[in-house]
Amino acid sequence: MRFLSDTSSDGVREQLFTLGEIPGVLWTPADAGTTPRPLVLLGHGGGRHKKDPEVSTLAHRLVTECGHAAVCVDVPAHGDRPKVEEYDRLAAENQARVEAGEELAPLIAGFQALVARRTVPEWRAVLDAVQELGHVGAGPVGYWGVSLGCGLGVPFVAAEPRVGAAVLGLGGAQATAEAAARITVPVRFLVQWDDERVPREQSLALYDALASPEKTLHANPGRHGELPAFELDSTVSFFRRHLGRNQP
Amino acid sequence: MRFLSDTSSDGVREQLFTLGEIPGVLWTPADAGTTPRPLVLLGHGGGRHKKDPEVSTLAHRLVTECGHAAVCVDVPAHGDRPKVEEYDRLAAENQARVEAGEELAPLIAGFQALVARRTVPEWRAVLDAVQELGHVGAGPVGYWGVSLGCGLGVPFVAAEPRVGAAVLGLGGAQATAEAAARITVPVRFLVQWDDERVPREQSLALYDALASPEKTLHANPGRHGELPAFELDSTVSFFRRHLGRNQP
Repeated sequence: MRFLSDTSSDGVREQLFTLGEIPGVLWTPADAGTTPRPLVLLGHGGGRHKKDPEVSTLAHRLVTECGHAAVCVDVPAHGDRPKVEEYDRLAAENQARVEAGEELAPLIAGFQALVARRTVPEWRAVLDAVQELGHVGAGPVGYWGVSLGCGLGVPFVAAEPRVGAAVLGLGGAQATAEAAARITVPVRFLVQWDDERVPREQSLALYDALASPEKTLHANPGRHGELPAFELDSTVSFFRRHLGRNQP
Repeated sequence: MRFLSDTSSDGVREQLFTLGEIPGVLWTPADAGTTPRPLVLLGHGGGRHKKDPEVSTLAHRLVTECGHAAVCVDVPAHGDRPKVEEYDRLAAENQARVEAGEELAPLIAGFQALVARRTVPEWRAVLDAVQELGHVGAGPVGYWGVSLGCGLGVPFVAAEPRVGAAVLGLGGAQATAEAAARITVPVRFLVQWDDERVPREQSLALYDALASPEKTLHANPGRHGELPAFELDSTVSFFRRHLGRNQP
């Protein structure tokens, strides 16, 4: 793990790093001691990156309101990472298939399943590395990711026993129902009622497939990109309730 | 409006009253001044009453955490109110029809629609009377009711322009979809995913029918009576966000 920068403002310390070929960012309380603290891994959306405003805003709130650490890394072919020829070829193929009248949702699902084969081991390595840092430590772990972050997050949460609570959503059952059936930790699952990318029945089927005894679905009107701001408050409360709260 | 008792404990003042033939209970901060405060009308469940623990717990939290007033009255044929021969006859008929193989949900819906013809004008009169009290005043108004409290609450919220935010749920579209289409205020809508009394598709159809631009569905696993405790926290936050907060 190599640190590229280290800055603090408004009580939040932000460190850019690379872990092998993976570029990432770690947020922690500026005056963190060495008591282990909860860590939330954030999965960014498709076409976005590790410092997307959605990700960065949530990270800052987890640090300042809960004393958590938060980490996000670029997904392959996103942010500071090089293109992946296989993904480009597949994206072009999918585009042609949609234009020829095929449904979008199964194509998205297939693509996310392919990417998850790389991100699941990468994210586990990121957890390993970050939890060895003195100002993070081996505390409880959470995961947050919607849209692409859900497609990649479901197999990750299913595979990684350290994750104790997850916020997922804006994703369907097509690629991930089998992995979802292996998730047993508390889940908050976000649905946009008028999602133009994920058919409603696919969203409900993914919620259904989760094996977690505690899982809450939050649905709101609006399209894929229109999650209401108050769900962010609710996400912060969810992680505070399940991972605990540290003094920042 | 006639007051029967007036007691205070732990910062909460509780007054039993009758308004005409309607028995009710009003909760306010023990040291309330004369600044108008938010008022939440609570609709109790079927077979329950105005001081049901579910109702009373929520009322205490609204008073102590938000500085709100809360009021609940017995639904006809519930609590301290006399039996209604027509309801008894209908209940017996419905029982026989269920035993003969009819679906339960439409029968419940029909019954609730009948009761709502009485409760809508009663609850409007209760609001009128309570808002004239010096320690309540004409502040913002909310409504909370699930199960029977939803079946009666949907037509009430649709009819009463003072209601600015509502928590509803555990109810289906069969009796109330038309009224729901006239509701435009922010709604929190609670669904139990394995509700044995309200078919899931009926719940989702009622959520769908609400005309509110801001409406959030919260679904949790479990049967009709198994709403998780953390939804109570969420309900209190919802009313605080929409009705504001007074110093108790």
